[in-house]
Amino acid sequence: MQTFNPELCYLNNTLQRGKRVVVENGFIVEIGEGDNSDKGLYLPGFVNAHSHAFQRGLRGRGEAFPAGANSFWGWREEMYRLVNEVASTSFKSWCLSAFQEMRNAGITTVGEFHYLHHEEQFDYAFDDIVIEAAKEVGIRLVLLHASYQHAGIGMPLSEEQKRFNTQDFDKWKTQIETISTRISESELCSLGLVAHSIRAVEQEAITQIADLAYHMGLPLHLHVEEQQKEIQQSLDAYSKTPMRFLCDEIEISPLVTAVHCTHTAEADMEEWLTRGGNVCICPLTEANLADGICDVPRIVRSEGVISLGTDSNARISMLEEMRLLEYVQRLYRQERGVCINSEGDMASYLVDIATKNGARTLGVKAGSIETGKLADFVVIDTEHQQLQGVTEEHLLAALCCGCDNSVIIKTIIGGH
Amino acid sequence: MQTFNPELCYLNNTLQRGKRVVVENGFIVEIGEGDNSDKGLYLPGFVNAHSHAFQRGLRGRGEAFPAGANSFWGWREEMYRLVNEVASTSFKSWCLSAFQEMRNAGITTVGEFHYLHHEEQFDYAFDDIVIEAAKEVGIRLVLLHASYQHAGIGMPLSEEQKRFNTQDFDKWKTQIETISTRISESELCSLGLVAHSIRAVEQEAITQIADLAYHMGLPLHLHVEEQQKEIQQSLDAYSKTPMRFLCDEIEISPLVTAVHCTHTAEADMEEWLTRGGNVCICPLTEANLADGICDVPRIVRSEGVISLGTDSNARISMLEEMRLLEYVQRLYRQERGVCINSEGDMASYLVDIATKNGARTLGVKAGSIETGKLADFVVIDTEHQQLQGVTEEHLLAALCCGCDNSVIIKTIIGGH
Repeated sequence: MQTFNPELCYLNNTLQRGKRVVVENGFIVEIGEGDNSDKGLYLPGFVNAHSHAFQRGLRGRGEAFPAGANSFWGWREEMYRLVNEVASTSFKSWCLSAFQEMRNAGITTVGEFHYLHHEEQFDYAFDDIVIEAAKEVGIRLVLLHASYQHAGIGMPLSEEQKRFNTQDFDKWKTQIETISTRISESELCSLGLVAHSIRAVEQEAITQIADLAYHMGLPLHLHVEEQQKEIQQSLDAYSKTPMRFLCDEIEISPLVTAVHCTHTAEADMEEWLTRGGNVCICPLTEANLADGICDVPRIVRSEGVISLGTDSNARISMLEEMRLLEYVQRLYRQERGVCINSEGDMASYLVDIATKNGARTLGVKAGSIETGKLADFVVIDTEHQQLQGVTEEHLLAALCCGCDNSVIIKTIIGGH
Repeated sequence: MQTFNPELCYLNNTLQRGKRVVVENGFIVEIGEGDNSDKGLYLPGFVNAHSHAFQRGLRGRGEAFPAGANSFWGWREEMYRLVNEVASTSFKSWCLSAFQEMRNAGITTVGEFHYLHHEEQFDYAFDDIVIEAAKEVGIRLVLLHASYQHAGIGMPLSEEQKRFNTQDFDKWKTQIETISTRISESELCSLGLVAHSIRAVEQEAITQIADLAYHMGLPLHLHVEEQQKEIQQSLDAYSKTPMRFLCDEIEISPLVTAVHCTHTAEADMEEWLTRGGNVCICPLTEANLADGICDVPRIVRSEGVISLGTDSNARISMLEEMRLLEYVQRLYRQERGVCINSEGDMASYLVDIATKNGARTLGVKAGSIETGKLADFVVIDTEHQQLQGVTEEHLLAALCCGCDNSVIIKTIIGGH
């Protein structure tokens, strides 16, 4: 049993003093009266709903432009170079770097959208490494295990994509069963299923993967409409957008998440949200990759569930992701206060996105400080220079707009 | 005399090892061979070309939207509330907070665009306080002393703007003479002149202020076209845009800086740049205030001199300003590598913006590590987790894209 007596604690969307949080076997079992003896503001730990940990190895790479400006596809070439130079040791070292940096950014759960599977042919050597690395760092991991079959709709994999290859649905399902057993041995790890994208997985397999996830009660994630080219390819092949395809072909539920949705049409988004689907946005990566500007106000108006991902890990900061989500909309629309809840509260809305919504997206019992939830916390130094002079009333907004990882004292995961 | 032996040093736009930098009376007097005994990467200290230090008091304020989204003008109401509640003590405390946080963000020179002058009627009490606060923190200050006369073109000041009032040009000039004497006593302080904006200063006075700056050899700064409303007011009153007005009425030189230029027309910008004028952009503040998206590629193509300002100080991070300048353009244009120099190098371009260009904008002999320049450095921890595994080739790009204030070990100002 552990007990925490936070000076300040984020409970029921308000900041409260004098609370005591009792933890048993990793879960919060009681919230009562405390003595403020634990310094700092306790928030639910941040949930990073979309990461490719190995891409931490790209930091600073692909950022020179001798031939002038390029695009997402130029960056992808650099990423593929990394993919093909990485070995077990370096793969593990990038995972360790990314996960450790995440903890220092207040992240307690990471959804690792994992598609770089093989060191040699079909060995799935990197699957275990992701799990080991997370375990060593002590971060809660949802291994989102990705099926990857195609270079594009109806196009065989290129040489440089061979390490992603999961072959047909049945073969991939066998690996899911294997890895599922491994994961059940690890206390901080759970499983989610992924069809990488409409580009990379064949039509029938996407339906099968979605069915499997639904019947296993696991989260399902897909990359959706990050790039206009993907939409065009889908229109050419299926005469419909990727999002329309998904709405037509799969069961949508609060465990199903479309990642990016940068260029999603209004009607498609409306249906996705109405049927309970989530949207994961990755502001820093989408900016770095020049993806374009998502119609976030449409999602906010429909009370859609947005979560956040650090994606390429070019920068790891949930606080910066939170403000960038709002700031990009401000710049584009010349309006302040786009990402707000029904009370007009931006800070609570952004904190929920980074915690509660991420937890739903990954199917973990975390994301809020309440009885029955996992004891995952991020502790903020309210006396840090970046928060100097800020009153309690404005603390969360100052955190969202004015702070970086320096204000994070520590993360606590499952009470430890 | 001080000597520095940086492990890594940014000289002539390249990273070099084994150099020795010798400093006398605050200036670099020699660069020779060294022994790498001083840990870290030495860059020229960052130059913050546009700040309103007291607005540090707003951090987290004006970020709730119970009546729904608002705009720059909604934020300004909150700012005016702060303006009218601040007293000498609190004004000084916000200045100290802002300046100290700037040093921790690697800033060695701040251009304080100072228009909140009076505690009581025309006492200019806050002018001295800015100077004192900078002195206590040990940051190099360019006091950009602002004339402020109007609420809008031809409109008398409102009650809440009384603390800005500098009355007519002659009265303001008297204060400039007074403050100029005070400043000459302070080693780390110099003076620049400001006409706050076309909105706030009468037509004739703008010309007089520009003349005075030109003849005194001082920098001249103005807010220009941050908001479309300002452009409309100028069109109504003068039948021309603010930028057109300036091009017609004042001497433009490398010491003259237009701040923001968010909505500046192409032809106006072209003339401004051709005649040697600078543009100061404040990415984080312009995002926070929902100003809109500046046509940065136009300035880059014309080889215009862009500098950066932390402006409202809602967040103080030059590294984040640098990446946001580029990232906003990437998102809006779906192109990567907008802010690049003639070699296609983004990182050097952004570092120059944050150093050399800022120094030109403020008229200080800083901004690069070379003989004859001020010994102002920011020292970066290349072993920090955020830079882990990054090779020297990609170090600057990783710094621009992947780091926050945590990587900054210290700043050195005038060799101390």
